Amino acid sequence: MKSKGSRFERDLLAELWKVGFAAIRVAGSGVSPYPCPDIVAGNGKTYLAIEVKMRKDLPLYLSADEIEKLMAFAEDFGAKAYVALKLPRKKWKFFPVRMLERTEKNFKIDESVYPLGLEIEEVAGKFVQERFGEKV
Amino acid sequence: MKSKGSRFERDLLAELWKVGFAAIRVAGSGVSPYPCPDIVAGNGKTYLAIEVKMRKDLPLYLSADEIEKLMAFAEDFGAKAYVALKLPRKKWKFFPVRMLERTEKNFKIDESVYPLGLEIEEVAGKFVQERFGEKV
Repeated sequence: MKSKGSRFERDLLAELWKVGFAAIRVAGSGVSPYPCPDIVAGNGKTYLAIEVKMRKDLPLYLSADEIEKLMAFAEDFGAKAYVALKLPRKKWKFFPVRMLERTEKNFKIDESVYPLGLEIEEVAGKFVQERFGEKV
Repeated sequence: MKSKGSRFERDLLAELWKVGFAAIRVAGSGVSPYPCPDIVAGNGKTYLAIEVKMRKDLPLYLSADEIEKLMAFAEDFGAKAYVALKLPRKKWKFFPVRMLERTEKNFKIDESVYPLGLEIEEVAGKFVQERFGEKV
């Protein structure tokens, strides 16, 4: 499970570098005494703190504690907080925390939220160029 | 050697959090296919890419390759590039790359450069407050 998680994190890392982000995986993100995301990235203008998830299907549930720690880190660091989700045969989708659906005790991404997720090019601020047919 | 290096990195991490930086250790910084520093930190205003070194004594030699990778990452990410050096019974000192002394093939920090190194509070932009006697 751990190595599978790492493989997906490395895959996302490569995608981030492709769209111009310098991106790194955080050492011991699960065990650190500090609140830490899985990936941190920057492109000189936009900084990202990313919690990385892969699932076989929806919904994805996230604990309030996990989301609070992600937001606390992002605020301290000076980054935008995202949950990145990989579903089988789908591209990575990025969800700003405000997009997550609140349940009684937790957060979730279900069928109604999933289509709102951002593509990596949108996160990198490259959406406009794409619409005008320029290379990104 | 590796665990000792990690211990010093964790020590520096704690120092960075103390002065208001959200700081993380980079996973696989030595083996990643991308140029990666040991530590990345941010406080919402200043972003740091740090190569972490500890030595029993001076000089510290750094390969041109290591410094070029640090600078490349820092430029892509949008961070200031520092070498942080720990000597026995001394506080951490921070050296912007421009401060390093160039040798024929490498870079070094020797007795003439070491006193110019910055304290962590200076890196955090807290030097002025300190001089006026305010708490940092």
